[in-house]
Amino acid sequence: MLRLFAALLTTLPALAQAEDLVTAFTLDNGMEAVVIEDHRAPAVVHMVWYRSGSADEPPGSSGVAHFLEHLLFKQTENLGPGELSATVAANGGSDNAFTSYDYTAYFQRIAADRLELVMSMEADRMENLLLVEDDIATERDVILEERNQRTETSPGALFQEQLRAAQYLNHRYGLPVIGWRHEMEALDMDDAQTFYDTFYAPNNAVLIVAGDVDPAEVQRLAETYYGVIPANPDIPERFRPEEPPQRAERRVIFEDPRVAQPYLARTYLAPERDPGDQEAAAALTVLAELLGGSNFTSVLNDKLQFEEQIAVYTTAYYSGVSLDDSTFGMVVVPSEGVALDEAEAKLDEALAEFLEDGVNSEQLERIKMQLRAGQIYERDSVQSAARRYGAALTSGLTVEDVQAWPDILQAVTEDDVIAAASALFRPEASVTGWLRAPETDQEVIQ
Amino acid sequence: MLRLFAALLTTLPALAQAEDLVTAFTLDNGMEAVVIEDHRAPAVVHMVWYRSGSADEPPGSSGVAHFLEHLLFKQTENLGPGELSATVAANGGSDNAFTSYDYTAYFQRIAADRLELVMSMEADRMENLLLVEDDIATERDVILEERNQRTETSPGALFQEQLRAAQYLNHRYGLPVIGWRHEMEALDMDDAQTFYDTFYAPNNAVLIVAGDVDPAEVQRLAETYYGVIPANPDIPERFRPEEPPQRAERRVIFEDPRVAQPYLARTYLAPERDPGDQEAAAALTVLAELLGGSNFTSVLNDKLQFEEQIAVYTTAYYSGVSLDDSTFGMVVVPSEGVALDEAEAKLDEALAEFLEDGVNSEQLERIKMQLRAGQIYERDSVQSAARRYGAALTSGLTVEDVQAWPDILQAVTEDDVIAAASALFRPEASVTGWLRAPETDQEVIQ
Repeated sequence: MLRLFAALLTTLPALAQAEDLVTAFTLDNGMEAVVIEDHRAPAVVHMVWYRSGSADEPPGSSGVAHFLEHLLFKQTENLGPGELSATVAANGGSDNAFTSYDYTAYFQRIAADRLELVMSMEADRMENLLLVEDDIATERDVILEERNQRTETSPGALFQEQLRAAQYLNHRYGLPVIGWRHEMEALDMDDAQTFYDTFYAPNNAVLIVAGDVDPAEVQRLAETYYGVIPANPDIPERFRPEEPPQRAERRVIFEDPRVAQPYLARTYLAPERDPGDQEAAAALTVLAELLGGSNFTSVLNDKLQFEEQIAVYTTAYYSGVSLDDSTFGMVVVPSEGVALDEAEAKLDEALAEFLEDGVNSEQLERIKMQLRAGQIYERDSVQSAARRYGAALTSGLTVEDVQAWPDILQAVTEDDVIAAASALFRPEASVTGWLRAPETDQEVIQ
Repeated sequence: MLRLFAALLTTLPALAQAEDLVTAFTLDNGMEAVVIEDHRAPAVVHMVWYRSGSADEPPGSSGVAHFLEHLLFKQTENLGPGELSATVAANGGSDNAFTSYDYTAYFQRIAADRLELVMSMEADRMENLLLVEDDIATERDVILEERNQRTETSPGALFQEQLRAAQYLNHRYGLPVIGWRHEMEALDMDDAQTFYDTFYAPNNAVLIVAGDVDPAEVQRLAETYYGVIPANPDIPERFRPEEPPQRAERRVIFEDPRVAQPYLARTYLAPERDPGDQEAAAALTVLAELLGGSNFTSVLNDKLQFEEQIAVYTTAYYSGVSLDDSTFGMVVVPSEGVALDEAEAKLDEALAEFLEDGVNSEQLERIKMQLRAGQIYERDSVQSAARRYGAALTSGLTVEDVQAWPDILQAVTEDDVIAAASALFRPEASVTGWLRAPETDQEVIQ
């Protein structure tokens, strides 16, 4: 099955450039593949994405998806410990992997003529991983140290962890991808092996090859290396406990003596991009840019930094690439001497004003232009295109959805943004967090 | 295996009375049994407790433990729909069941000479439940209606649900026993059958027989009816995801136009009674009585109702009977015109004063006397003794722990209470909830 997707961004003549030249096919064993041609440099990015991330972990085993990711760099029945990465490096390439809520992905970037080499090794570890107790113990220490470095030593990271836990009442998005420390400490061979046996199979994987390649040749290689791996007929349905109605505004006050700069965070439960139904997510994407995008004319920047001068930094963020309900977030870092409750009141004022005043049409046009430009500049990196498709296809979206996204973003109207914002800003679906140092003469009781 | 437990409460001469006369034994298939003799009336309470409650449910199937409880009143291979209850009633008895986080229990109260009858039927439904689609559909409607009645129509119940969800970041105690509505709606035959097959077996059950019975005769009957049911060798380890360190104070603001009387709730994560290690829980039990017991001299009553007159009602509650970490809670219902933030400030003041002033020794003695008296008055009800043992034995405790509990409570000192309170009142392990009606001119943004 071979399909071709090619579209032209005709609405932006000055920056006009071919859309991704994408070929998609599916192997007989169910493995999906996407080839993104880019012949500007004789290099290739080869990725395998598994439709299993931290939100697919069994209860009590948080962190096992990421733990297994580490273990895939150890041995297989055919490759010695670390041999895959060493071989990639010896051939002038680089490799790595990452785990998120909805996926785990492995990739190599290497000269285009070495594609077969990396594909043969990636296919090998899809089927022939060899777990040994020594590696389990070593890598468990490594991920614990990773948690120390990234989370335990960072009040901001711990704060974000608590915010997510408060945002989700039922869904595993409320748990950290890296895992709760006490559960990570208990991860063992059996946990890793079970996760591997459950999810690592061609019919749960997406191959992404981007770069200086011929799609027909990629398909031939994929059939040779991945096509021979049997499908796992028992891949579980991708079932996650969904959120109940969120009925009560939540607040989280995180105090840590290490906090030098207090700040305020607000998140709302938000819809995600769904296949064939991306309009609400597109409006929220534009809303995040309008409120707190990196340009200096965002609403929060304008109102809180320039006009009121109560904040030194503001931002808003949202990503719709998510299998289940996502979050929309804002951060306000108050100016010296401005209390968090004052900053919060000003944030709420600013949001209320925004809803009342509506969208500035010039600003909306500017943001759409920036989004288009960003999409085009992004094409300089084959890797980011590969990630875009890989993340989408493991988060419930299709190649068609990815292709349609730029036009859907461009079609967002002022009314769409206000409607999306009105639906979003429900106090009962929100979490407001304060991160600060404890007062010096703090009492025992709060 | 036959053990005898008998103890005398020698410390309370005026109310002196024999302790529970308890016989415990274990059947060859692993089913535990406790017989509590009480010959004052020719009646018996017969209970079977399963070590499986809502916290043992698989993710996404909240409510299935309670759903299955309903279905056990339908058919078996030997009994028609409703025949068990009808037979109990026809013999002058009554029956019912209840589900909690850690257990599901079924009981009958009936004339002592009908014990064999109820035991034969209870044993039958442990092994021979017959689920049919019609009953699944009907009882799913019944439990949904139960949720409507108990929860959806009650802002207070919805509020409590949100508080628990905020208290537990990882453990299933954060989910309602009755289930999240959207998950209840999806419960099907397979969910119920799987839960039954997994947990309903003699080696996961505790038999409690209390009343006018002879322990040897009860054992003979138990061997006849329960002893023949094969053990399930695959009963899963009772594994629940434990809480990570709780690091951030949480607040929940629940607004509902149906709220006539706003109030404030505060809960803290609290240790539970552990086998052979019940001292901390005993101190917390005394603390709850001291702070907000039903007597009119409790600390919160004194300070907030009498002295400050800012509250019309206060209470504190704690139950240590729990397999995993429990909660300690307080409620303050403010007087007319007193705002929730003011009530909260006064609550915190009162707690700080309490920690500073220490325990009033007369009050402590009064409370210990009340606890002793309560334990003795409770013996008037065979049913409450049966429940006490059943709940304890399905929550990780032993008969010895239950027997030791009164003395452990009496041994609590003033210092123990203050130490327990100091360890308990950590803001970062707390949830503070406000339940109120929305302001009438409420803005769109909070």
